[in-house]
Amino acid sequence: MGGRDDGGGGNSAYGRKAFKRSKAHFADRITADGRDSWPVEAGRYRLVVSRACPWASRALVSRRLLGLEDALSLAVADPVQDDRSWRFTLDPDGRDPVLGIRYLSEAYDRREKGYPGGVSVPAVVDVPSGKLVTNDYQRITLDLATEWTALHREGAPDLYPAGRRDEIDAVMDDVFQDVNNGVYRAGFATGQEEYETACTALFRRLELLEKRLERQRYLVGDTLTEADIRLFTTLVRFDAVYHGHFKCNRWKLAESRVLWAYVRDLYQTPGFGDTVDFDHIKRHYYQVHTGINPSGIVPLGPDLAGWTTPHHRAELGGRPFGDGTPPGPVRAAEEVPARGRP
Amino acid sequence: MGGRDDGGGGNSAYGRKAFKRSKAHFADRITADGRDSWPVEAGRYRLVVSRACPWASRALVSRRLLGLEDALSLAVADPVQDDRSWRFTLDPDGRDPVLGIRYLSEAYDRREKGYPGGVSVPAVVDVPSGKLVTNDYQRITLDLATEWTALHREGAPDLYPAGRRDEIDAVMDDVFQDVNNGVYRAGFATGQEEYETACTALFRRLELLEKRLERQRYLVGDTLTEADIRLFTTLVRFDAVYHGHFKCNRWKLAESRVLWAYVRDLYQTPGFGDTVDFDHIKRHYYQVHTGINPSGIVPLGPDLAGWTTPHHRAELGGRPFGDGTPPGPVRAAEEVPARGRP
Repeated sequence: MGGRDDGGGGNSAYGRKAFKRSKAHFADRITADGRDSWPVEAGRYRLVVSRACPWASRALVSRRLLGLEDALSLAVADPVQDDRSWRFTLDPDGRDPVLGIRYLSEAYDRREKGYPGGVSVPAVVDVPSGKLVTNDYQRITLDLATEWTALHREGAPDLYPAGRRDEIDAVMDDVFQDVNNGVYRAGFATGQEEYETACTALFRRLELLEKRLERQRYLVGDTLTEADIRLFTTLVRFDAVYHGHFKCNRWKLAESRVLWAYVRDLYQTPGFGDTVDFDHIKRHYYQVHTGINPSGIVPLGPDLAGWTTPHHRAELGGRPFGDGTPPGPVRAAEEVPARGRP
Repeated sequence: MGGRDDGGGGNSAYGRKAFKRSKAHFADRITADGRDSWPVEAGRYRLVVSRACPWASRALVSRRLLGLEDALSLAVADPVQDDRSWRFTLDPDGRDPVLGIRYLSEAYDRREKGYPGGVSVPAVVDVPSGKLVTNDYQRITLDLATEWTALHREGAPDLYPAGRRDEIDAVMDDVFQDVNNGVYRAGFATGQEEYETACTALFRRLELLEKRLERQRYLVGDTLTEADIRLFTTLVRFDAVYHGHFKCNRWKLAESRVLWAYVRDLYQTPGFGDTVDFDHIKRHYYQVHTGINPSGIVPLGPDLAGWTTPHHRAELGGRPFGDGTPPGPVRAAEEVPARGRP
């Protein structure tokens, strides 16, 4: 996998067959009761992400919204992998200062020697042992919301409210199939029919989401939930990479009145846009996927100025944080550099 | 060249060096006085085009506006070349019914045996001898406008008026460098810097053109001229191929209030949009340039519905055809199939 890893929760299989996303291999859970031997504990674990990756970015948003910055430290990988996959070349001496490793694969190896699968983010690593605990991108954020509650900040929102889980799960499943993973199925298709099936389903789903969000500020209920986080991390990349690089080009998000306002609303909400690095996003997709973009050239567009313009979604009502409050400012060490922002 | 020919007036050089457009090799002129031995004569010549190609499409528009359909017959090549370049696979038995040839290269060979250069459209072929007369894409349309006048329809516009040629030439030169050829320099760049130089100059020029066209319906004077034809044939392809495939993605044309209205105005003017086949355009660029798009997959987008929407440019005044009139309907045999239209 390595350089061919898509940087997502799973791994891309470029090949003759249709794109398949691998299941996470390491699915241990970090829980309040520690039943998998990994109890929730402040300062014990390190979250490894790429800001390029939509699956990892879910955890970046959740961690901010829930105020887990002090409890769960953060390692940000270089957006461009080499043949050994994700690496810490953004850090001094090319080593993560807490784990002391140069490649994320070293944490995988400590967990399972000679592990033959792909290396993916998000990954949670146990700092004392240096072992990978989980790369289960579908589970990590749900556990941050429901198992890490003792460490949440005061005023943290309930991102996965017990009374609405069936609806949230149903929405997230549709969004996963057609949108989160749909853009990859379109972009990594090796045949016309496979591409058209994915692209058609994607835009059909986006049109249904436009209807859902036309008179309702958030996907489920009147507050932010995990469902919004998962839609956001794909939509924020849409015009920058999926539209051109993955050929999801029926229209730009900026041409969709409802979805463009919805995603700008989230972008401008503390905890969402402040995790996004458009520079990392564009360099990752355009430089890593040489099978799609042999030149490795990174486009100058799109113009990002629109992201900070008024969205008027507050007129729809809604209480973003429910009975809670917005998160405070981003830690100085975690600020996205200016070149990654509008 | 062959399969690597860009289908334009010149030929693309993919390679380590910056993209260079070849000069036309055969630059004889067909004139009223026949000074190059090729006198203007009804029925004698055949115009060979691809509807995919912006350079050839200039001649398609001129021929319609000037009403030269009966005087100068038309051969339309398959939008997808093979290793012998442009071919007549859309015709019965894969042969042009008038010239009797399967490949345009055969007319080049009759003109110069063993000609080693690229085969390009537009090409004008002498029907009696089967020889190529000219592939000079910068000259062909000017001669249609100024040398073929005896064969123009009644009410044909003056597309290259004597009193405005300096201004028209100056505008066309800027548009050629930064826009017509600029999109190719961006798309065929092999390095980041080369791409950025081309893409930056392209959008700077488009912004200047937005200013010029904000209060003025056409580029020069208050009537359609050759300058509008040359800008149109690039702009009409912009969102369909240059935006994604050539990475000219600072914004879509559909996001530019002025240019989107300008190009729709032209598209809806008889003689312009009725020559455009979006299906040919998309299949050519995405299937032929395997160096840029290895999968050969042709995107489903963009949505073409906007092309026929009101443009309100008539409010700026202007007399599209000057003292002349619009051309009549398209000949049945030359109609663009439904799948190529919005």
